[in-house]
Amino acid sequence: MTTLAITGGQVLLPDMTVTRADVLIDQERGEILELGDDLAADADETLDASDSLVTPGFVNGHCHVSMTLLRGYADDKPLDAWLQEDIWPAEGELTPDDIRIGAELGLLEMIKSGTTAFADMYFELPEIADAVERAGLRARLGHGVVTVVKDDEGAREDAQTSLDVAAEYDGAADGRISTAFMPHSLTTVGEEYLDEFVPKAREAGLPIHYHANETADEVTPIVDERGVRPLAYAAEKGMLEPQDFVAHGVHVDESEIGLLAEAGTGVIHCPASNMKLASGMAPVQRMLEEGVSVGLGTDGAASNNDLSMLDEARDAAMIGKLAAEDASAVPAEAVVEMMTQGSADAIDIDAGRLEDGAPADLAVLDLEKPHLTPAHDLVSHLAYAAAAADVRHTICDGQVLMRDREVLTLEESAVRERASEAAASLVARAEE
Amino acid sequence: MTTLAITGGQVLLPDMTVTRADVLIDQERGEILELGDDLAADADETLDASDSLVTPGFVNGHCHVSMTLLRGYADDKPLDAWLQEDIWPAEGELTPDDIRIGAELGLLEMIKSGTTAFADMYFELPEIADAVERAGLRARLGHGVVTVVKDDEGAREDAQTSLDVAAEYDGAADGRISTAFMPHSLTTVGEEYLDEFVPKAREAGLPIHYHANETADEVTPIVDERGVRPLAYAAEKGMLEPQDFVAHGVHVDESEIGLLAEAGTGVIHCPASNMKLASGMAPVQRMLEEGVSVGLGTDGAASNNDLSMLDEARDAAMIGKLAAEDASAVPAEAVVEMMTQGSADAIDIDAGRLEDGAPADLAVLDLEKPHLTPAHDLVSHLAYAAAAADVRHTICDGQVLMRDREVLTLEESAVRERASEAAASLVARAEE
Repeated sequence: MTTLAITGGQVLLPDMTVTRADVLIDQERGEILELGDDLAADADETLDASDSLVTPGFVNGHCHVSMTLLRGYADDKPLDAWLQEDIWPAEGELTPDDIRIGAELGLLEMIKSGTTAFADMYFELPEIADAVERAGLRARLGHGVVTVVKDDEGAREDAQTSLDVAAEYDGAADGRISTAFMPHSLTTVGEEYLDEFVPKAREAGLPIHYHANETADEVTPIVDERGVRPLAYAAEKGMLEPQDFVAHGVHVDESEIGLLAEAGTGVIHCPASNMKLASGMAPVQRMLEEGVSVGLGTDGAASNNDLSMLDEARDAAMIGKLAAEDASAVPAEAVVEMMTQGSADAIDIDAGRLEDGAPADLAVLDLEKPHLTPAHDLVSHLAYAAAAADVRHTICDGQVLMRDREVLTLEESAVRERASEAAASLVARAEE
Repeated sequence: MTTLAITGGQVLLPDMTVTRADVLIDQERGEILELGDDLAADADETLDASDSLVTPGFVNGHCHVSMTLLRGYADDKPLDAWLQEDIWPAEGELTPDDIRIGAELGLLEMIKSGTTAFADMYFELPEIADAVERAGLRARLGHGVVTVVKDDEGAREDAQTSLDVAAEYDGAADGRISTAFMPHSLTTVGEEYLDEFVPKAREAGLPIHYHANETADEVTPIVDERGVRPLAYAAEKGMLEPQDFVAHGVHVDESEIGLLAEAGTGVIHCPASNMKLASGMAPVQRMLEEGVSVGLGTDGAASNNDLSMLDEARDAAMIGKLAAEDASAVPAEAVVEMMTQGSADAIDIDAGRLEDGAPADLAVLDLEKPHLTPAHDLVSHLAYAAAAADVRHTICDGQVLMRDREVLTLEESAVRERASEAAASLVARAEE
């Protein structure tokens, strides 16, 4: 057994209180052995956390990681025009190599901002899985299925790919990688393909992840055509199980909040993307009141434009209050829980809490910053004032991925350089 | 003449385009002499800006700088309860020394996040002015007047203080400090005091700065009592002149947008505070369309909870799209303009643009960051992805206030330590 002690810090506990403790980790098992005083003597190695806050590694519940290549490429446009005029044409030019380097850039950004686990929907899953394995994070990955622009053969092939790669990669990277079947959304995948492939996903034991109720424009056609709300349609199709999770959930009504709470299906709230694309304000306070499992996600970098979960937590508290017209709604504790345990529960991975026996996924934040002074309330600081650059160390599955801001599993300058070249070439091809 | 050249960077021009240029500064006059190629040879000193973006120093149009001491002290409460139960009792215990150290902490945070100028409403102006003079920033300062909780003598004394300190400190710190008469708001200052003191402020040549239309609860009593909207009342009282500026402007109707545009009165939009206190969404897109002079402000750290204008710009773009229900509203260029030239114009100081003869107030941001890669659009990065910690150097009035993240005019660790002690003692007294 090799052990690592994280020493001298303040530790955020699962009940959202903060206590002074060292954290002792079994690096081989990737587990927390103990929280307590003076644990350095028991450890093979130590990592300094003095004047720092030790938190669970952040869990990004919904991402399209390789979209980092399109960060800032097309802003300030409505969802439909943005997708059709800019994003889809550019994505049409993506090579597996592009997706690989885009993923590496995103993983680099995640590690540097304290994220240790994420759920991702994209293409070329083998490239992303390999990047995740080497970078050292935890992830639930899937291939996004879109049938509406394809013929029947293409559509069925796409859905089959999503099943196949999910089956192949589930449990990869010594169990750090899990997967899901990922139909893009209830309007971009035809009913016949849901009818055919959702049961196959269930047979394979896969959870299902999809976009739902992101914009009002996406709700109306389902209601018009089927006479039921989108999540009632999802339930009919067998896509509202406890292990499933939907992204966005902006335009959900009370009946759908009830369905989500009853089913135990997770919702990944993506406040930055919902604001930037003017999609609307999710009723997060209502969902929390009804016991819906709510996590937080950044969505892709093109609609955010960063992958920092600390930004997302602040955005969630802010927009949550606006949506509820109540400054006490979606308080600091709620968003910090959402970015850790909440997301982990929603995407159904074991992570997001610091306690004996839990996975050793942690972020250590430097508190010696003007914007984190004074220290009246460290949970408030996490929600409202801390930033990605405050993260000193990032640990996942017991391994140190970043030490004193130096990422150990990816070469930062090489990744940035290759990503810049790939992005420039991609845009040149897309605009040809 | 001592000259400084900022070399190797990309420079943000007043028309929101970016060009490769060096910037040559006359440090004695505090002015930009020239933007051009290869200016290092002409300079006494150089500051490296390679792989960096050189922008105008950010202008924080509305702050209560010493409230840094209350950062995270009371969150997640509605404006009224927050003020009455937490903030005002704590502020009642503030000593001049507290206000001094709180200001130093805030100025430290501003310098570290690229802010070079700000407008501030608080108490004990001599303490704040001295801190600003030593820290090296530019500011328009004022003493906030509240009459509703005072007897006539106290109210008149408070208003007279606001006039007196404004007259005394206007032009201080070699002209870096300017001032204003600052009645707190249209509901917290009685009409008789406006009638008496606004003309005196005009005689003294002072602009007027006040909170207006921040919450719906603040609009209703004015409409009920006077039969006119708050800004029509402000106009009646002579408080809507081109050199005046109001903070917030959340609940302004079309008639008030028209008044603001016609008068040339500035509005300082404070999106983070408006979200955190659930005050509402200002119609910023409408104001921009009508030609209102709109700037950006952080408000105090207790309702934000940081003083980074980069956060504020992102918030403004995000909430601007939500308010307009249009993803193309309040685009990146608009918020970057608002945080520089827009705020400078609104608070009526000469700053916020990089061109020959302009004040030498600049921020230099390191672009070699994963979250700023790739570089499709640097204005988008400023609006949506850049963070306070990306600021390498901060220059105000030709003087380098921060070089490679080291603040030269304040001792960072000493300020943080004294602020922590003052904050702990303040809260102990307030809760006694």
